[in-house]
Amino acid sequence: MKPEVAIIMGSISDWDTMKYAVKQLDELEIRYTKQVISAHRTPDVMFDFAENARDNGIKVIIAGAGGAAHLPGMVAAKTTLPVIGVPVKSRTLNGLDSLLSIVQMPAGVPVATTAIGQAGATNAGLLAAQMLSMYDLDIAQKLADKREKMREIVMESSDQLG
Amino acid sequence: MKPEVAIIMGSISDWDTMKYAVKQLDELEIRYTKQVISAHRTPDVMFDFAENARDNGIKVIIAGAGGAAHLPGMVAAKTTLPVIGVPVKSRTLNGLDSLLSIVQMPAGVPVATTAIGQAGATNAGLLAAQMLSMYDLDIAQKLADKREKMREIVMESSDQLG
Amino acid sequence: MKPEVAIIMGSISDWDTMKYAVKQLDELEIRYTKQVISAHRTPDVMFDFAENARDNGIKVIIAGAGGAAHLPGMVAAKTTLPVIGVPVKSRTLNGLDSLLSIVQMPAGVPVATTAIGQAGATNAGLLAAQMLSMYDLDIAQKLADKREKMREIVMESSDQLG
Amino acid sequence: MKPEVAIIMGSISDWDTMKYAVKQLDELEIRYTKQVISAHRTPDVMFDFAENARDNGIKVIIAGAGGAAHLPGMVAAKTTLPVIGVPVKSRTLNGLDSLLSIVQMPAGVPVATTAIGQAGATNAGLLAAQMLSMYDLDIAQKLADKREKMREIVMESSDQLG
Amino acid sequence: MKPEVAIIMGSISDWDTMKYAVKQLDELEIRYTKQVISAHRTPDVMFDFAENARDNGIKVIIAGAGGAAHLPGMVAAKTTLPVIGVPVKSRTLNGLDSLLSIVQMPAGVPVATTAIGQAGATNAGLLAAQMLSMYDLDIAQKLADKREKMREIVMESSDQLG
Amino acid sequence: MKPEVAIIMGSISDWDTMKYAVKQLDELEIRYTKQVISAHRTPDVMFDFAENARDNGIKVIIAGAGGAAHLPGMVAAKTTLPVIGVPVKSRTLNGLDSLLSIVQMPAGVPVATTAIGQAGATNAGLLAAQMLSMYDLDIAQKLADKREKMREIVMESSDQLG
Amino acid sequence: MKPEVAIIMGSISDWDTMKYAVKQLDELEIRYTKQVISAHRTPDVMFDFAENARDNGIKVIIAGAGGAAHLPGMVAAKTTLPVIGVPVKSRTLNGLDSLLSIVQMPAGVPVATTAIGQAGATNAGLLAAQMLSMYDLDIAQKLADKREKMREIVMESSDQLG
Amino acid sequence: MKPEVAIIMGSISDWDTMKYAVKQLDELEIRYTKQVISAHRTPDVMFDFAENARDNGIKVIIAGAGGAAHLPGMVAAKTTLPVIGVPVKSRTLNGLDSLLSIVQMPAGVPVATTAIGQAGATNAGLLAAQMLSMYDLDIAQKLADKREKMREIVMESSDQLG
Repeated sequence: MKPEVAIIMGSISDWDTMKYAVKQLDELEIRYTKQVISAHRTPDVMFDFAENARDNGIKVIIAGAGGAAHLPGMVAAKTTLPVIGVPVKSRTLNGLDSLLSIVQMPAGVPVATTAIGQAGATNAGLLAAQMLSMYDLDIAQKLADKREKMREIVMESSDQLG
Repeated sequence: MKPEVAIIMGSISDWDTMKYAVKQLDELEIRYTKQVISAHRTPDVMFDFAENARDNGIKVIIAGAGGAAHLPGMVAAKTTLPVIGVPVKSRTLNGLDSLLSIVQMPAGVPVATTAIGQAGATNAGLLAAQMLSMYDLDIAQKLADKREKMREIVMESSDQLG
Repeated sequence: MKPEVAIIMGSISDWDTMKYAVKQLDELEIRYTKQVISAHRTPDVMFDFAENARDNGIKVIIAGAGGAAHLPGMVAAKTTLPVIGVPVKSRTLNGLDSLLSIVQMPAGVPVATTAIGQAGATNAGLLAAQMLSMYDLDIAQKLADKREKMREIVMESSDQLG
Repeated sequence: MKPEVAIIMGSISDWDTMKYAVKQLDELEIRYTKQVISAHRTPDVMFDFAENARDNGIKVIIAGAGGAAHLPGMVAAKTTLPVIGVPVKSRTLNGLDSLLSIVQMPAGVPVATTAIGQAGATNAGLLAAQMLSMYDLDIAQKLADKREKMREIVMESSDQLG
Repeated sequence: MKPEVAIIMGSISDWDTMKYAVKQLDELEIRYTKQVISAHRTPDVMFDFAENARDNGIKVIIAGAGGAAHLPGMVAAKTTLPVIGVPVKSRTLNGLDSLLSIVQMPAGVPVATTAIGQAGATNAGLLAAQMLSMYDLDIAQKLADKREKMREIVMESSDQLG
Repeated sequence: MKPEVAIIMGSISDWDTMKYAVKQLDELEIRYTKQVISAHRTPDVMFDFAENARDNGIKVIIAGAGGAAHLPGMVAAKTTLPVIGVPVKSRTLNGLDSLLSIVQMPAGVPVATTAIGQAGATNAGLLAAQMLSMYDLDIAQKLADKREKMREIVMESSDQLG
Repeated sequence: MKPEVAIIMGSISDWDTMKYAVKQLDELEIRYTKQVISAHRTPDVMFDFAENARDNGIKVIIAGAGGAAHLPGMVAAKTTLPVIGVPVKSRTLNGLDSLLSIVQMPAGVPVATTAIGQAGATNAGLLAAQMLSMYDLDIAQKLADKREKMREIVMESSDQLG
Repeated sequence: MKPEVAIIMGSISDWDTMKYAVKQLDELEIRYTKQVISAHRTPDVMFDFAENARDNGIKVIIAGAGGAAHLPGMVAAKTTLPVIGVPVKSRTLNGLDSLLSIVQMPAGVPVATTAIGQAGATNAGLLAAQMLSMYDLDIAQKLADKREKMREIVMESSDQLG
């Protein structure tokens, strides 16, 4: 069966962050592709990827990038599929530059932005699953189960206080 | 037919921003509900709303709020449907507080965040449509048409330079 | 006798910060409960806790959280007891996101916010005691003694210069 | 009967903000004093005020200031009563300087900080009332009534959408 | 003769800023083209433009954009000509988002960034001229004359003090 | 002979920064006192110190503090001697809070603010010397010599490139 | 008699701010010169001015500038007289850029920085007077009188509350 | 043959950053000089350097500096050659101060600013080469080759995912 989610990232160094998105999809048994695509170093590959994503059966795209992070927004400019942008923590400005470069898109071309760094990558995986769950009750159930498990972990963690 | 998108906002004063989300859904002929729900002033209404959204046939929730903007994140905590958060421009900090309160969600509970203010509200409407377009080719086509129209407007606007 | 202060935090990882609040209450011999309650992962527990806090004899609530820190504000939305919010230092934005998410509450639902991190947690414990001291002269005296001790430590520390 | 709350502000120009704290106390029928006291221009008055506040029957102090806002913290240094700090919006940095000057207090001397500007002043009045409500069920009831009224206003406001 | 500078901007609304770049080139009698090209709304036009700029005789490209400003960086990704980026002042974050989106480019693809807004646009025009002046002594002389004129204006302005 | 400069700091932990001010005064053979005085923990000592500084022969005061740094401004409120404020780097916000708390003083009570951290402390020592040099040609000469020495160090450092 | 203070500013547009420094010197009957000197447009005039200031009898220099505000720091690099830097509020970043450009000087060359804008200019005038007061008891007395007058104004302003 | 690019930096400690500019020029076989020149500690050397740069055959100047980074702007004030400014990461504010001090130049004197830190230095080297490539097809070809090599590295890096 065809992958439904495509995970791309601007640089191999973003993998340390983006693997948390992959982890969620693995746990939820959602099929995905993963690839390094750089807006600035492989612009044509990026455009080809985005232009053909829908025809290739992709339903949601997750794109992570740092600094002047143009990848999510430029992919979003070339497809009408939902694009989730993950601001990777940058070396100098802690990802504030990544966040603003991704989230402040002009009217007409949205990017669904998550938190900076690892939490944002985890949530990108979950958000993709939530989108799929709109029409897939099996995924919806798995997400509900994950929530329940999180709840239990929090409940039990109080025992470790002090 | 049942509405597929629910638009909520923390205060009637957010309507000046959130009406831009409504405008997109109207243009795309997507059914929606709209309501003022305040995380801090009507917390129980918020929880009821979120808990029952999926059963009520809602597919995507758009939530706009400003300042210490807790509405999108708290709704997201009570549903596994995708929640789009729109940071409304705040009086003192220009919406930077709204943005960080919405986007910096912890791992486990994503909010799909758009830009601060009017552009973000417009894009929230479009993003909801893009999610629906994953399985609805009619909406996908309408979104493609909108893109083409935007392209033409830009192309023609060069004539107005100088 | 019943505890008068309730200390809650959004995650077990906040304990490294929040234990400084506990330390103050221990030193002042004020009774308290402590618990991990997550706004996003245990929202119903949070609401139950807040709704019943006054009836359970709690006088002040201390809530610590980081990132998109919704716990203090949402607890405050469900009780009219004073809620003290401690912004926990976050991984990417150093707690500026935590601070703004907690302090920028809309008119109607206050959160008494302290400094980011360890100093803020210490002061949350002291602030709770100061509130109790409004009607408890014994605590007022203990707080005055602590101030005097701080004064002496500062006075003596000049000897260590150079 | 003696006033229980003291409202002070660093400059007469802060009154436009601080009157919102007064408004809440008036509505809740809580007695208060109000005075302009400047940390930098009347430092001795400030110290006298703070040193004698508890003996004068004051239970809570509300202090508003802008820019390098030292008034709340310096008053807090001279009393063990709870001090609520309101960051007044400043001309150049929108109150970010006021906020950081007030909230980032060192361990040992807390200031209960509210939001920047008018919302923060409103909440300072409410927070003072909430502190008094710890031992005053009449005020507690009035606060609950206010919450209920807020809830109703929000519920009705949905009718005005669009 | 062929134009040597190309001025592009992401939206017709950027013209109010970018006309200051044009003004400098007009004064220096440097030939240029001007066009609205949007990274997000006309991505293919952007790529075509950038790919062919050098062959079309263009020597320097000036690109102005606001918000999540991807135009300068994406054009730079498709040409090895120098690209000057002008951060246009944005509605919500005063152009800080524009600045960081433009200047924080990853190693490998530079954008020569100028100040936010009108001053930055003026300087983009001058910077393009300075680049041309590397091999064109006539332009170098004109730039020196402009500097001398600026000097005189400053010298004379002291008379207006007080 | 009496000391002409007084160096104070809010906490013994500020010594790591403030010793750089001392180092400059030592090198310039300017007499000074040094003391830990906390605005919040020893407010009365602070007021006594400031009130009597001029009568005690002090000509310039250097005050270092971090976080909600009130020491320089409050000392300045109690003397008409020049007060130099050094923003000490803070744990959470890197000294931005210290800087704004010190520099944003209201009209009427100036604080001569230097850079955050070690460079600022060094410059505080030099600035005090520069003030004394207004009427002391010996110090003026020593400062000129220091500048010349700095110049030479820079000139020679080019040899170490690459 | 010769002027003791020199007031310079980077542009005639800074006069609206810098006139507040002049106002203080006028009130204190301190002699001064005033001049527009631009670091970037009249660099040689700036160097001549700074190099000769001490020989011309100047005791303190006040320099105001906005944006990438290099004037105070560059003047400081060419004299060992104390230089007071006033960050003028800038069009796009509200003077945060001016402040950081002036205050963050490297070790070796201090600039005594005041607040952004009008308050900072007023305080620059006062700070210059405070420096002169180190050896001039007449000015010291006048400054004490001004403080007393400020105190009275604050005391009386309480009458205007509400 | 004469060097065409001059690389200067404010301090020997900037070399760790600026060597990345040198690396690019070495790879592209472009001749350059390198030197430590401090705006604040060797202002006259700086002016001499800038004034004579064009006559000495220099075509482009690269200037790196941190904190209150005045070097690029002051060099730009003394030449009409293009000046590339590299904001070096600063100890306290992560280079945000360096960036604003360099990029926010007033109209009339541009500085071509690159990213903060190592990426910015690399890009400064490349940008200088791109300017030279305007009239030097050999360099243009080498830059195109570098881009192709970057493209290949990105393409291959996908193999390392997971």
